[in-house]
Amino acid sequence: MNIDMIRAAAQRLEGHVRRTPLLSSPFLDDIAGRRVWIKPECLQHTGSFKFRGAWSALSAMDDETRARGVVAFSSGNHAQGVALAAKMHAVPSVIIMPSDSPDLKIANTRAFGAEVILYERGQEDRDALGAKLSAERGLTLIKPFDEPQVIAGQGTCGLEIAAQAAKAGIKNADVIVCCGGGGLTSGLALAFEADAPGLRARPAEPEGFDDVARSLRSGRIERNDRASGNICDAIITPQPGDITFPILKRLCGPGLVVSEQETLQAMAQAFHRLKLVAEPGGAVALAAALYRPEQIKGEDVIVTISGGNVDPAMFIRALCRA
Amino acid sequence: MNIDMIRAAAQRLEGHVRRTPLLSSPFLDDIAGRRVWIKPECLQHTGSFKFRGAWSALSAMDDETRARGVVAFSSGNHAQGVALAAKMHAVPSVIIMPSDSPDLKIANTRAFGAEVILYERGQEDRDALGAKLSAERGLTLIKPFDEPQVIAGQGTCGLEIAAQAAKAGIKNADVIVCCGGGGLTSGLALAFEADAPGLRARPAEPEGFDDVARSLRSGRIERNDRASGNICDAIITPQPGDITFPILKRLCGPGLVVSEQETLQAMAQAFHRLKLVAEPGGAVALAAALYRPEQIKGEDVIVTISGGNVDPAMFIRALCRA
Repeated sequence: MNIDMIRAAAQRLEGHVRRTPLLSSPFLDDIAGRRVWIKPECLQHTGSFKFRGAWSALSAMDDETRARGVVAFSSGNHAQGVALAAKMHAVPSVIIMPSDSPDLKIANTRAFGAEVILYERGQEDRDALGAKLSAERGLTLIKPFDEPQVIAGQGTCGLEIAAQAAKAGIKNADVIVCCGGGGLTSGLALAFEADAPGLRARPAEPEGFDDVARSLRSGRIERNDRASGNICDAIITPQPGDITFPILKRLCGPGLVVSEQETLQAMAQAFHRLKLVAEPGGAVALAAALYRPEQIKGEDVIVTISGGNVDPAMFIRALCRA
Repeated sequence: MNIDMIRAAAQRLEGHVRRTPLLSSPFLDDIAGRRVWIKPECLQHTGSFKFRGAWSALSAMDDETRARGVVAFSSGNHAQGVALAAKMHAVPSVIIMPSDSPDLKIANTRAFGAEVILYERGQEDRDALGAKLSAERGLTLIKPFDEPQVIAGQGTCGLEIAAQAAKAGIKNADVIVCCGGGGLTSGLALAFEADAPGLRARPAEPEGFDDVARSLRSGRIERNDRASGNICDAIITPQPGDITFPILKRLCGPGLVVSEQETLQAMAQAFHRLKLVAEPGGAVALAAALYRPEQIKGEDVIVTISGGNVDPAMFIRALCRA
């Protein structure tokens, strides 16, 4: 896993993924006490950065392997990314999703042409399910984060941020990243190491599911006690990955942890000030920038809004609670 | 009013306005029966395209005139655009707004440092109010649409669409534009005439406030019967402008008219499929593309989402009604 793989992925993604802009609002700057820059990956195809990694993985396969089809497990964003990328490559996909995934994510994954298999989060082992299907049908498993070509795809977002920050005159800044298993965070960290050494990736997580923050503190992989029970469905993973964690440990700053109320408030701020739809798991980095200013250094902070696939009921809850 | 003024405005706006992307979604293509391309000016500074015209007008003034300050009348988007552009030029601004403007728009205009004066829509003459203030305080009036430098600023959005359409391989398409007094529509039409003759601007309006569509049919300026009473506050103007109408008449295709329900549905589609917050007046063009396909020709259609300054209550209404 290295920067050359990210640059190669960027070549394969060219013309297929969106180069999302870097946004800002003086109202957010006022709250945070510093300039806040937003990388809105909710505007990416399928509504999250996951399309980058999915396209990267599919486009890196040899033709014969790819033609047999792919399988993925995901709460919904990786699911949609793989489903659409597979459809665009004209190959079949099977997606294993927890039964409590947002309706919108399940419906969209099906609409992108995937066969969806639901499982019970916390009761069934999704890895075992994926391995079984992979063996039975000859499908290639595309893991959601602990897979080099997926990390390489997510890293292309970091190459964009590095270039956009340079253009905006930002030399040194924390880059807060919505973090589940660490695919996006590690990809960004590798991109910054090469192209923008003054930028430092820092994971953001919801309270009670701060496995990455705790792992970074202890120096070894720590697990979450629970596997469900948080509004941030997109980033509720049991623990950091075997491939992602060493990268996070070597390159990232300390993790940031935010409350549910702060996450909902950040979603409302994205609505009011950026005209963006952020899902809970996609809003934790913005929440950290706005409501944990004392844990951040420097005049600028960059945050990812990593996804926007939220059901209306949850979005209305955010608008009403904030 | 000509293309050279638009190109000059683009020079002055460089580095100060956002170049908004061109987005799409396969789900919207399915509804419309053709490829739908979205120019999301809700992502522009102040949440609408109006910042372009405001910056253009302010930056075109001589230093002495500008230093005395500016005055504008607006239901809210031109208000915010002028207020922020004035603040960034470090000159005072006074904004005359109807008392029924969305709370968010009034609050934001004040937050951008403007002095806000409220008036009763339909009872007081806002033009007379503006002229009076202009005379009393030496402020320069920046009209919302019937002003060449404002049209030139809005036209820069058309230069971007022309370049983005060419890059996407679109040679011929209707470009549906949310239309109030015709500033954006006429600016886009002039830009297309010069840079993308296969693109044709077409105004979109809400039912009951279709003065531009009727004016294009009759060939002369027609007025609306009412001055208020529609959710599309941003584009409820009495009639097309004396400067904009001849341009619209010469260059635009027939107007499209949509219902309130269709507008709310289009807002919900922008939420689900684009992760964008559109205000009612900013969603009529998307509504026309989605729900008036029989009135549109060609394999592609381009629409503006012209603004996203909507109060939560109205947005929730759109999510619930759709």
